[in-house]
Amino acid sequence: MTTPRWAQRVNDNAAPFGSGELSPLSMMYGMPDPALFPAEELAAATARALQTQAAATDALQYGLIQGQPDLISLLTDKLERDEDLKVTPSNLLITNGSAAAIGLATRIFTEEGDTILIEAPSFPGATTIFRRAGACLVQIEVGPGGIDLPSAECTLAGLQARGVQPRMLYTMPTFHNPTGLTLSLEDRLTLLDLASRYDIIVLEDDAYRDLYYDAHTGPLPPSLYALDTEGRVIRTGTFSKILAPGVRLGWALARPEAVRKMMLLKDEGGTSPFAQHAAVEYARDGTLSTHIGTLVEVYRAKRDTMLSAIERYFPTEAQWTQPSGGFFVWVTLPPSVEPARLLTLAREEGVDYMPGESCFEGQPPTPGTYLRLSYSTLSLDDIEEAIKRLAKAICAVM
Amino acid sequence: MTTPRWAQRVNDNAAPFGSGELSPLSMMYGMPDPALFPAEELAAATARALQTQAAATDALQYGLIQGQPDLISLLTDKLERDEDLKVTPSNLLITNGSAAAIGLATRIFTEEGDTILIEAPSFPGATTIFRRAGACLVQIEVGPGGIDLPSAECTLAGLQARGVQPRMLYTMPTFHNPTGLTLSLEDRLTLLDLASRYDIIVLEDDAYRDLYYDAHTGPLPPSLYALDTEGRVIRTGTFSKILAPGVRLGWALARPEAVRKMMLLKDEGGTSPFAQHAAVEYARDGTLSTHIGTLVEVYRAKRDTMLSAIERYFPTEAQWTQPSGGFFVWVTLPPSVEPARLLTLAREEGVDYMPGESCFEGQPPTPGTYLRLSYSTLSLDDIEEAIKRLAKAICAVM
Repeated sequence: MTTPRWAQRVNDNAAPFGSGELSPLSMMYGMPDPALFPAEELAAATARALQTQAAATDALQYGLIQGQPDLISLLTDKLERDEDLKVTPSNLLITNGSAAAIGLATRIFTEEGDTILIEAPSFPGATTIFRRAGACLVQIEVGPGGIDLPSAECTLAGLQARGVQPRMLYTMPTFHNPTGLTLSLEDRLTLLDLASRYDIIVLEDDAYRDLYYDAHTGPLPPSLYALDTEGRVIRTGTFSKILAPGVRLGWALARPEAVRKMMLLKDEGGTSPFAQHAAVEYARDGTLSTHIGTLVEVYRAKRDTMLSAIERYFPTEAQWTQPSGGFFVWVTLPPSVEPARLLTLAREEGVDYMPGESCFEGQPPTPGTYLRLSYSTLSLDDIEEAIKRLAKAICAVM
Repeated sequence: MTTPRWAQRVNDNAAPFGSGELSPLSMMYGMPDPALFPAEELAAATARALQTQAAATDALQYGLIQGQPDLISLLTDKLERDEDLKVTPSNLLITNGSAAAIGLATRIFTEEGDTILIEAPSFPGATTIFRRAGACLVQIEVGPGGIDLPSAECTLAGLQARGVQPRMLYTMPTFHNPTGLTLSLEDRLTLLDLASRYDIIVLEDDAYRDLYYDAHTGPLPPSLYALDTEGRVIRTGTFSKILAPGVRLGWALARPEAVRKMMLLKDEGGTSPFAQHAAVEYARDGTLSTHIGTLVEVYRAKRDTMLSAIERYFPTEAQWTQPSGGFFVWVTLPPSVEPARLLTLAREEGVDYMPGESCFEGQPPTPGTYLRLSYSTLSLDDIEEAIKRLAKAICAVM
């Protein structure tokens, strides 16, 4: 029996959420802190969602492929309240986590062999999806303020000179994974202008927007989707960070035609109405907003603890980002630090992190040894201890 | 902006679970009866699944792409208990309903332009998935005992003579949708022999196996998957008919290599652990088995009521199947009955059904006017009344 190309292309080693042993003080994954899951309230919400025959029928019968109208309303209301962003239900598609939205966008906008632009570094969970779709990935460097737009223009001009038309740019302008950086309003407008001039779809991954820790310094810049006047931005969002990944609820915001096309590729008969109605019941009467407020408090303290511990323990040769939201600090060490040796020593100390190599396609544009440190799951004391031990490993290698 | 071929291929009218108005006494869809959803028990099960921090972390954190080990164990145990079928966890993949399993199997075993064999008639929800994947669909007639194997051999020989190698056969040998027929053991073995000689993957849709109403007449024949000795059968199953479609839980049974490949195409970060753990808790201590026993009693009565009403009211020119399980009776009327006219008259009577045309690719192999009648959602009295009114419409057309 011959194996079709599709199957041969599958990379067996690329499971997006890794297996393998984690170190006791792991800073590896961008998982939310399970201690913050509102388990009891979600159980009560599920009971309410199943309480009457009519409600149970909504939650347990086949649902609508686009998503349950109640959840779509919840999101249109939330976008208007939180961002003053007016969208209609026809702009929204409910998906199995935002990963599914990224997969669907990839399938409707690109074909095997098409070029997709990604940031360097980028989120490996997304780049794995692009590779599986047979895309040719081209990196654009991320600078100190997020995606570097002169580099982007240069890359685009170079591709154009070679007759290559990239289909899509995948970007995380807000609390970027893995760097934690946020693109300024000015750069957002420049990016959209570039996308327009080179006719590129922009896939904006907006997984962390609600986890903004520095609101006292001013509001976040609007999303690319909100700034877009041409219908070329698809923005993805998720309940994974603000409720729980286990409900597998995400969404895509896009122009209605794109929503309709993605909808028709949802082979699975729609995203779980059971999970959708549980989430809707949970969010009623401001519970979700209050919960997000709690998450912001807790994660802000974790971020502050990590940054001050890094400040205290890391050698002067190290550089790191100052995230104003999300889960990650990105550390740059001199290229002389051998990545594999550092990881081995760190593990001997009982800590780990995501090695920067996993966030690049091939070589990083600027030589260096990079580490993504996640502060989401550890306690404050453990963050302090993890950074202290990691610093010890770094100093030993240097 | 040019539209890629993928997007152009999407058929905008092919939503698998239709919208549009249903008639008051609808026999259109194969949906389970919502009055039979175990809503209260599922709410209690969800509360148990979220009760301790450890359990809540399993149910609410990111899960395993293959599926949660507890649900996989539940299925391996169930297969051994109910069918004496021994499978290992490596043979199982949990999916978002069995539709997602059908989509994944299609993606790993076929490429755009490949030929997929389907039964005539077949389940439109599946053929829509194949069409969207760019498959060329070739029909094999279903006879009075299920898929007609001499026709299948003839079709395969014809394709071979033209140099066409079909990749996959999609079949429902047990309580076939839409005909309700079940293939005999002998024919199952012949079918596997054919698949082996012509080197074809067999995708066995086994959505209704647990809903067997005539167990007193003898056991069901084993599934094709159970009879297969070459690893060429993928069998799909679902909780939609035995628990609730809204949980969106299905599975694929396949050789480990195929499971692994399908797993790597699951872009969505795994099927909802929340729904999986709720189902596992629900099924504990035999609750699921007891519930299936109840479903069999209730649906058997519905089937009996529909068959006896048809016997009583339909004109002698009508023929129909005698399903021993599942949700459907398939009615054949003379070709002189104009399908559109019949549907219009039926709707005027307040009844509807799935017109047979939707179950064929183009013309049916044997001319006739066909109707799929679902008895799953109506009450016994409504089934009686629906058949009476449909008979009136049929007689009016004839």
